[in-house]
Amino acid sequence: MALIVQKYGGTSVGTVEKIENVADKVIASRQAGHDVVVVVSAMSGETNRLIELASQVSDQPDPREYDVLVSTGEQVTIALLSMALNARGYPARSYTGSQVHILTDSAHTKARILDIDESRMRTDLDQGRVVVVAGFQGRDEENNITTLGRGGSDTTAVALAAALKADECQIYTDVDGVYTTDPRVVADARRLQRITFEEMLEMASLGSKVLQIRAVEFAGKYNVNLRVLSSFEEGPGTLITYEEQADMEQPVISGIAFNRDEAKLTILGVPDQPGMAFSILGPIGDANIEVDMIIQNVGADGTTDFTFTVHRNDYDKTLKLLQDVAGKLGAREVAGDKSIVKISLVGVGMRSHAGVASQMFETLAREGINIMMISTSEIKISVVIEEKYLELGVRALHSAFQLEQEMTL
Amino acid sequence: MALIVQKYGGTSVGTVEKIENVADKVIASRQAGHDVVVVVSAMSGETNRLIELASQVSDQPDPREYDVLVSTGEQVTIALLSMALNARGYPARSYTGSQVHILTDSAHTKARILDIDESRMRTDLDQGRVVVVAGFQGRDEENNITTLGRGGSDTTAVALAAALKADECQIYTDVDGVYTTDPRVVADARRLQRITFEEMLEMASLGSKVLQIRAVEFAGKYNVNLRVLSSFEEGPGTLITYEEQADMEQPVISGIAFNRDEAKLTILGVPDQPGMAFSILGPIGDANIEVDMIIQNVGADGTTDFTFTVHRNDYDKTLKLLQDVAGKLGAREVAGDKSIVKISLVGVGMRSHAGVASQMFETLAREGINIMMISTSEIKISVVIEEKYLELGVRALHSAFQLEQEMTL
Repeated sequence: MALIVQKYGGTSVGTVEKIENVADKVIASRQAGHDVVVVVSAMSGETNRLIELASQVSDQPDPREYDVLVSTGEQVTIALLSMALNARGYPARSYTGSQVHILTDSAHTKARILDIDESRMRTDLDQGRVVVVAGFQGRDEENNITTLGRGGSDTTAVALAAALKADECQIYTDVDGVYTTDPRVVADARRLQRITFEEMLEMASLGSKVLQIRAVEFAGKYNVNLRVLSSFEEGPGTLITYEEQADMEQPVISGIAFNRDEAKLTILGVPDQPGMAFSILGPIGDANIEVDMIIQNVGADGTTDFTFTVHRNDYDKTLKLLQDVAGKLGAREVAGDKSIVKISLVGVGMRSHAGVASQMFETLAREGINIMMISTSEIKISVVIEEKYLELGVRALHSAFQLEQEMTL
Repeated sequence: MALIVQKYGGTSVGTVEKIENVADKVIASRQAGHDVVVVVSAMSGETNRLIELASQVSDQPDPREYDVLVSTGEQVTIALLSMALNARGYPARSYTGSQVHILTDSAHTKARILDIDESRMRTDLDQGRVVVVAGFQGRDEENNITTLGRGGSDTTAVALAAALKADECQIYTDVDGVYTTDPRVVADARRLQRITFEEMLEMASLGSKVLQIRAVEFAGKYNVNLRVLSSFEEGPGTLITYEEQADMEQPVISGIAFNRDEAKLTILGVPDQPGMAFSILGPIGDANIEVDMIIQNVGADGTTDFTFTVHRNDYDKTLKLLQDVAGKLGAREVAGDKSIVKISLVGVGMRSHAGVASQMFETLAREGINIMMISTSEIKISVVIEEKYLELGVRALHSAFQLEQEMTL
């Protein structure tokens, strides 16, 4: 018998019928002998309905009151799910974040969890009840209602699993696991049985939207076994865990992530002096624009070219700022490109395998794809290429690294 | 400067525009120098929407979870009203029933208030904030969410006024006060400036639906000055208070209440023996049917006729029960009538004035209205008459007792 925390997102509880479907899944786990704590989001559409109400009252709603408002969304779902479980003869109790003492800081609309008192949940579990907890919300020291921000329900589930020392935290979503890459781009993309936290973090931050980065970080920090599964289909999903697989050959590459949301900016011919990078990126940072990849090449003439990427939505604003900076620094030219994408190979196996980078570059070269930027970390290689080559590049790499094939002993 | 508790019901906060209208009314009180605590209901329609969701999940929703569900209705309103106040530059904070420690018993869906900790509200008021509290809800000893049942928001407002020793508890509704009788029946019915708790209780229980009986009882018990006002029009409303008006002539009659929801049943020719009333009404009470008026006449032949009234919805069920009873008791006959109404004169002045009853009977007789039952209390006289005479009777009495005329010094 295990203790399992299950999290169901907005689309999984979007209608009364779907909530009843979730009740059936919870009951299946109970029948398998497990203790179950369920975390649910607001019914899909509900949070947006509440935000729309707020926007009618004020352009900038008071953040404390915003949290009081939107936290009702999850409260509706926990009540309905608990009713459904009780009606089926499975005792259940619902709790708001505040009721199970999910203590957070006071940063309304984006609060961070500080502590959880698991004693009340433990009592219910000991008495054979299913515990149903509202995701995405908590309370601060003064018992004000707080919310964790979008996607916070994943974080709630992981935090509860950590506090309860649960055997597994299962995140039910509309995909049945983590794939080697997006199946909409590569038809024979394969569901991974397992992936490490580090790899998952790289995959998530590179645009694979299965899990919230914050929840993965949290799970990694507290060593909570995370599993991603489908709400709508049976299947084992993907386990995200610390344990690198000692019992089988570690694949070199676990997956290929990509990101269409980036844009590239270059400032050409700036004097090659100390402090130049800061002079260029300082104003960008001050404007709250996040910079992703950064590359600097020093030329022979004592000037340097400086290139970086930002979110495509920030492109116009960044270009303007950069033109100001270029004037001040006496740079030769500013250039930019919105039609780019980033493709990344991710895998802990890279640590012990040389030659991944050269195989990647060779594969892309064979397809006639020009590489515009390169960036590497211990478990990842990213390249920036022209947007039109995205699908071709991902498919070629997926095939070159044989990701469609399950690793066997 | 006074401390005022204001309560706005569902129709007064039914849309965002109406909530903004409430914010303006609250601000007017602030500008007049008052401290304000506001109690609000769910936006009209919202509670029914939530109940409908529950009914899709279960025919008999778990009561604890039902309270978790429906309590979200008021939570939405407190957040929106507080946002509106903050957006207008008037600091406000919203609280759920649980957050201001409205401690209740654990009778889910119909809990009773046991205690309120007013310290947090007091701190906010001292700091110049408007306090906005969710009506209709609280928490029990174990911090489970409870609701007070329909109309509970009035009770919340009165309880907060009592705990805070407020100068006045203002109930904003869709009528502008308590009238001498229903203006839809008597065109020149007059708004009362004040009425005593006792009178209000009689008016309310007799079918004048302005205030919840429970809230009036609560206000009377804790000596809270209650005022009924319109959400949509300016005006002083009606003050409900203990103070009988020493400075002016007390009117004999304050108002005329009536009730169309009753039905009359008679069991004829039962042996006149001790215990007979219990034999007749015991089975009715056991079936959870509430009996209103009861009249017994002893005849000359050692038998008695026993007549009582019940809610019209309970008529058929009661008739059946009474036929069983009649068989067992050897009664002669059972009769009933659904086409009756009750009209009542209410007034504390009756205590010191003889002749009210005879004037009432004379007035009705002059209009050719036959009286079927009579019942009296210290401050009330009720008669049952044929339904078709309702309007005629009420108008004749209203005029006979000169209720359209304001009392002056």
